[in-house]
Parts: sequence; C-alpha cells; structure tokens
Amino acid sequence: MIEAMSGPVVTFLTDYGLSDPFVGVCHGVIAQRCPQARIIDLSHGIPPQDVRAGAVALARALPFMPVGVMLGVVDPGVGGARRGVAIRAAAGHQLVGPDNGLLWPAALAAGGVEAAVDLAESRFVLDPVSATFHGRDVFAPVAAALAAGAALEEAGSPIDPASLVALDPLVPVVETDALRARVVAIDRFGNLELAATSADLHAAGIAGRDGVVVEAGDRRIDAHTGRTFSDIATGELLLYEDSSRVLSLAVSSGSAARRLAVATGDELRISAL
Amino acid sequence: MIEAMSGPVVTFLTDYGLSDPFVGVCHGVIAQRCPQARIIDLSHGIPPQDVRAGAVALARALPFMPVGVMLGVVDPGVGGARRGVAIRAAAGHQLVGPDNGLLWPAALAAGGVEAAVDLAESRFVLDPVSATFHGRDVFAPVAAALAAGAALEEAGSPIDPASLVALDPLVPVVETDALRARVVAIDRFGNLELAATSADLHAAGIAGRDGVVVEAGDRRIDAHTGRTFSDIATGELLLYEDSSRVLSLAVSSGSAARRLAVATGDELRISAL
Amino acid sequence: MIEAMSGPVVTFLTDYGLSDPFVGVCHGVIAQRCPQARIIDLSHGIPPQDVRAGAVALARALPFMPVGVMLGVVDPGVGGARRGVAIRAAAGHQLVGPDNGLLWPAALAAGGVEAAVDLAESRFVLDPVSATFHGRDVFAPVAAALAAGAALEEAGSPIDPASLVALDPLVPVVETDALRARVVAIDRFGNLELAATSADLHAAGIAGRDGVVVEAGDRRIDAHTGRTFSDIATGELLLYEDSSRVLSLAVSSGSAARRLAVATGDELRISAL
Repeated sequence: MIEAMSGPVVTFLTDYGLSDPFVGVCHGVIAQRCPQARIIDLSHGIPPQDVRAGAVALARALPFMPVGVMLGVVDPGVGGARRGVAIRAAAGHQLVGPDNGLLWPAALAAGGVEAAVDLAESRFVLDPVSATFHGRDVFAPVAAALAAGAALEEAGSPIDPASLVALDPLVPVVETDALRARVVAIDRFGNLELAATSADLHAAGIAGRDGVVVEAGDRRIDAHTGRTFSDIATGELLLYEDSSRVLSLAVSSGSAARRLAVATGDELRISAL
Repeated sequence: MIEAMSGPVVTFLTDYGLSDPFVGVCHGVIAQRCPQARIIDLSHGIPPQDVRAGAVALARALPFMPVGVMLGVVDPGVGGARRGVAIRAAAGHQLVGPDNGLLWPAALAAGGVEAAVDLAESRFVLDPVSATFHGRDVFAPVAAALAAGAALEEAGSPIDPASLVALDPLVPVVETDALRARVVAIDRFGNLELAATSADLHAAGIAGRDGVVVEAGDRRIDAHTGRTFSDIATGELLLYEDSSRVLSLAVSSGSAARRLAVATGDELRISAL
Repeated sequence: MIEAMSGPVVTFLTDYGLSDPFVGVCHGVIAQRCPQARIIDLSHGIPPQDVRAGAVALARALPFMPVGVMLGVVDPGVGGARRGVAIRAAAGHQLVGPDNGLLWPAALAAGGVEAAVDLAESRFVLDPVSATFHGRDVFAPVAAALAAGAALEEAGSPIDPASLVALDPLVPVVETDALRARVVAIDRFGNLELAATSADLHAAGIAGRDGVVVEAGDRRIDAHTGRTFSDIATGELLLYEDSSRVLSLAVSSGSAARRLAVATGDELRISAL
C-alpha cells in the first residue's frame, strides 16, 4: 500500500545547472507523462559537458537510490551523431541518456547491461524534437514512459549491448614507493577525489604510514593519513578513504584544491615521507 | 486513480536563488495549506529583480508543464504600491504573483486572461503579512488555496483583466541585409537567446546563408549558421534556432556571452558576411 | 484521506551545496527507507561549516513548516567526538543531526526538548558508516525511520536533554543613543540580517527616527528607516524589520553587504543621525 502510494522513482542527473529552467521543464515533461513518478534530483551541478564526472556520480550513487529509472544527461554531442539509448541493467535499474559513456559505469554497478535500445525512432519522444534540448524532448519523456511501466523494448530499436560506448577507467600508476593518480572530482569543500584506492597505496608499498608527500606540478606538500577531518589540525592536508571508499585529499577547514592548485583531470604523485 | 494520487501541480519560479531558505519556506507554506500539492521548481535562478527574464521563462515553460497553478515571484516592488494578483487563463492554468508584467506572457501563452483578482484583501494570506516577503506571506498561500480547489473568486477582489500590467515585447529591428536584436537570456553554458526568430532573419534578407557577421559593441565576429553545436568546430560561433524556436548564439565548447562580451539587454547586429 | 496521501514531511537543511550529489544521495536513502516521505529542501546553501547560520535558518523556518522531522547537517566535526542526536520537541517536531548547537534554536522554537537520544549505536544507520558522510549514513536513515513512524526511543540511547550542546545567542550591545549588533546572515540580494530587534533600537533610544548612521569598520553611511525597499530611492541604505522581525539593512536595487563591506559575524554600530 505504502509502496504503491510512493510511486516509481526517476533519479535525475545533468550538467544543466539550476540557474536556468532546463531542469524544471524536464520535471514538467515527466510529471505530464507519469504523474505518479517521484523525481530525485541527484545532481545538476556536474561541470558542463564533463561526461566522466557525471558517470562517476551516477555509479557512486546507485547503491543508495531506490530501484527505478536513472535519467542522465551530460551531452556535448546533442543533436549530432551520438545515439540516445535506454538500458535495462541486470539488477533492475533502467538507465536513459546519451550513449557517450555517461551511463556505462552505473550500468556495470547495476549488474551489467541486460538489454539496450536506440531511441532514434522512439515513439515516446516529444514532437517536434529540437536539435539542442534532448533532455526535454527525448530523454525525459522516455524515462517517464519507462517509469509508467512501458517495457524497454517499446522505447526503441534493440541494439547489441556490446556496441554501447564504454568509459575507459582512469588507472593509477604504481611506482616504487609512490603512486600517481588523477583527480576525478572536486567537491564544494575543495576535497579532491582521486582515481585510486587504498589497495593501490598497498601495491605501491606506502600504506600504513602516518604521513606521505603529495606532489602536484611543482608543489610538494606533506600530508597526514587519517580517517576524518577532525583527525588533523586546521589547515593541514589529510589523505583519507572517502565515503565512496576511494582515496581523497582534504584540508581541514580549508580547500585541498586551492592548496594544491589542481583541477579535475590533473595528476598527483603520492610518495613516502 | 493515478491522477488523484499525483495531486495538483504548483509550478514555482522566483529570483530567490537557492542559497537562502526563501524557496524552502514557501514550500513549507504550500505543504501546510495543500499537503497533496506537487511543487515543480521551474527555476529560482532568475537574475535578481529581472522581471522580463522571469516572464520569458514562465511563458516558454508553459507548454511542458502539467495544467495547474503557476506561482511566479520576481518582485522588485514588494510591499509597495504594485498589486498582487491571481489570474485564470482560458486554457486552464491559474497564475499567482505580483502584477508587474511577470505573469503576462505566460497568461497570453495559456490562452489569455479569463478572470483576475487583486490579492490585497485575500482571506488566504498569512497573518501577519510582512512588508518584504510576499512570496511566503501572500503568493504561496494563495497558490496553495487554488491548488487545493478554491475558486479564483474566493482568493481576492475581481479586477478588470485589461488593467493588468503588460510586458512590452522586445521587437527586433529589420534593416537592409541586417537585423538588430536584444539578448533576452544567457544560460549557464553562455548561450545567448535573442529577441528574434528565423522569420526576422528572412525579413532582413539574410536567411539561408552559411555564415553571418555578429556585431556587439566594437566586436565583430563571423558566425556559422547551423542546427546544433556539433555542426561547428570547437571555439566557433554558431547562429541557430534554439529549443524554444528563437534565434540564439553559441560557441562550441565555449561561451558566446564571454566571446561577444555581452550581457542581458544588450543589442547585437547580425548582417551578411 | 488527503493527509494520509501526502505522507510524513522531512525538512532538510545542510551546507552540502547543490553542485555535488550529496543532497541527492541523502534523498535516495530516505526514499528507500520511507518511500511515502515528502522531503522539503529548506536550504543546502548554508555557508560551509557555519553552524550558527544553519541554526538560525532552521529556527526561523520552523513556524512555516509542516510538523514532521527536521534533518539538519552542518557538521564540521563529522567522524570525530561530537555526538549525533535525535530530539523530540514539545510541540511535535522531531530533529535529527549533529549535537553541535545546530538543532538547538529550532528545538527551543518548537517548545523545548522533551526527549533526546544519542545515535552512536542506532540500529537505523547504514552499514558500514563512513567517517566523513554521516548525512548519508547516520542522519538520513534515522530521519527516514522516524518519518516512517519509529519511536524516538528506538533510534538510540536516551540522553539528558540538559547535556545537549546549546548555541550561545548573539546579544546586541545597547549604548547611549547607539546599538552594536553582529551580522547573522547575508542573503542573495546582499541584505544583512542583524542579531537585534526593534526592541533593542527602543532600548538604545534611537527608535522612531527617520534616519540613523550605520558604521562598519571605518565606513560610516546614513540610512533611512522604513518598512520595505520601495520606501527609499535606488542606491540608498534602508534599516528595516525583516520578514523574521529582526533588524536588517538593505540597499535598494543594490547590495548592503558590498556597500558596507561586511561579512557574516562582523559587528555594526547604529546611532542617531
């Protein structure tokens, strides 16, 4: 009874930002097509056109979201040759968005792709479809149709799951007593999430130490290792495992991004003190 | 059954931003007065006190929103002499907000004004009404009452629809082989929406060309014409019809606003190459 | 019937911002644990780690929110020694968050603390609990359990309400013909909210005047007193009672924060012209 009352869930992520009405208009389209859907705005602050950042956010959030439809739109190729797709994952989630790698890590995290369709001729899209706003005209109405109970196969033409665009993982480089890893994301607090885990620290032979050296470009800063921000003094650099269990850097009551002067995609080197 | 479950819809637009609790408090007022209402946040990022930008956003979104109550608050004259109003449009939508032109284009898009009331003595407002936060104290509770099923006539004193404040349209200027038009909105990606359409390009005799020249102040930049961002190379300027079918300018993987150094309200001149 | 349909309400406030997926992930956790809950995002734009700003926002919003669960997370001490707590207030609201003063003024506003529990051993938390994201792992699932009907006593170990961390109030200083008060909050429009009321102006003997002098550091600017922004000319400084009935300063069509060059926490002096 309570389940029925709460309705299907659409988890929604974009790089649209919240200053323009793009997100709200997509909500309107979904509410028209599937009034009983509950939309959870996972994030609309993905850096513009940063497909990898969006993909990581979707995949990391997946275990915490109700099973339903994941609608992801970070789409630098909108209106061009890239396909729009809908995917059914083995563990129950359905995913809708551009076929540019955005949905790939979440689909893997949801048990792998069971079936996929190309939305080019979907009967669920708005008429007309604009060349620049497929979030509104293609992806939101398809997500609404799936949330309302349509089968994936009704949403488009079947395609080979193996033809979906994958996202190449960012692999850390293990050296002798050092680890090189890229910055995957920077959050509002200036904390840096790295493409590396504690296992990589182990492999590099620098796990279990109280401190390490972090190098970014020509900056070289000592960092403590710890569990949380209150383990270090204000202004110090902390290397820790974040809530997604990946290596991260923070400055207590400060910004690690500013302190190390790095941006998403930059490489850091972590070595023994 | 599903209709009943999903409840009435309140579409909500303001210039309050999301850093302060203003929007959340209005949600609370609506949820207290009409618990079954679903609120769709169309945008709260309208530039502060930019009535025209809010009006354009409301009118453009209208076709994509479920029929219901549109609550718009961009209100530089709050607490002063301007009226608060509620409007019933011919095509079913009701609109609530200040009588300063904000609701006008949406009301036209919704089939024109069928009836309107002045909220000065409305029995639905909070007690007391503050002088500076009519979104919370006047407009949200009136929108909630309408969403809960109150008749427009219960919400205030009838006024002549012809007395509502209209918004004068921004008319482009057609010259020989050139078009002058103002920038109506700039989105997060730096794309510029102009107060002109493809029909105006035709009238100016410069439609159907591969390229045009765009002048902004003393800047003069060549632009390609096309359908979408992927039609041009990175860094190039594109003149296209956007998803609202108005003329727009974009820079592929860049910002047209920065490239042309313009702000909302500025005039551009488009002419033959 | 309509009451039942609308479900329990969780009012949610953090300093997480909306650019990262933190807020969306907490929504997911709540939706999984209590699908029938309606979440009202009061604000996620509290300045990072500004416990006082969050506390003031929660307490001010309380009278306008449906009775339910208030979930507040501004938590510089996450993962450290500070307790996580859930509180039942006399007037019906329940509050969940870190025991650092954040919930204190709202609990007072809700009639005072009736009972409180420590969440350290709560059976409702996620497994595992990360060291850095208690919003997701502790506070959201506990809020969801309370919204779903669990008793406060099921959520943790009882603690003495008198042991909760209070927030010391910012008391204005009344001088002869002058008042010194701190800036509590600065909103998107640059309006300054002061830790003082009209009663304090009276006590200082400077109420009822048309104008006053405002001093901030070495700036000294004349201000009009009035009811709302339209009472003064563009660019002038206004001293008024804001919608929370506290003294505030605004510049008509401008920013009082920029004009006076002040930040949250700074002290202003208001005296007779």
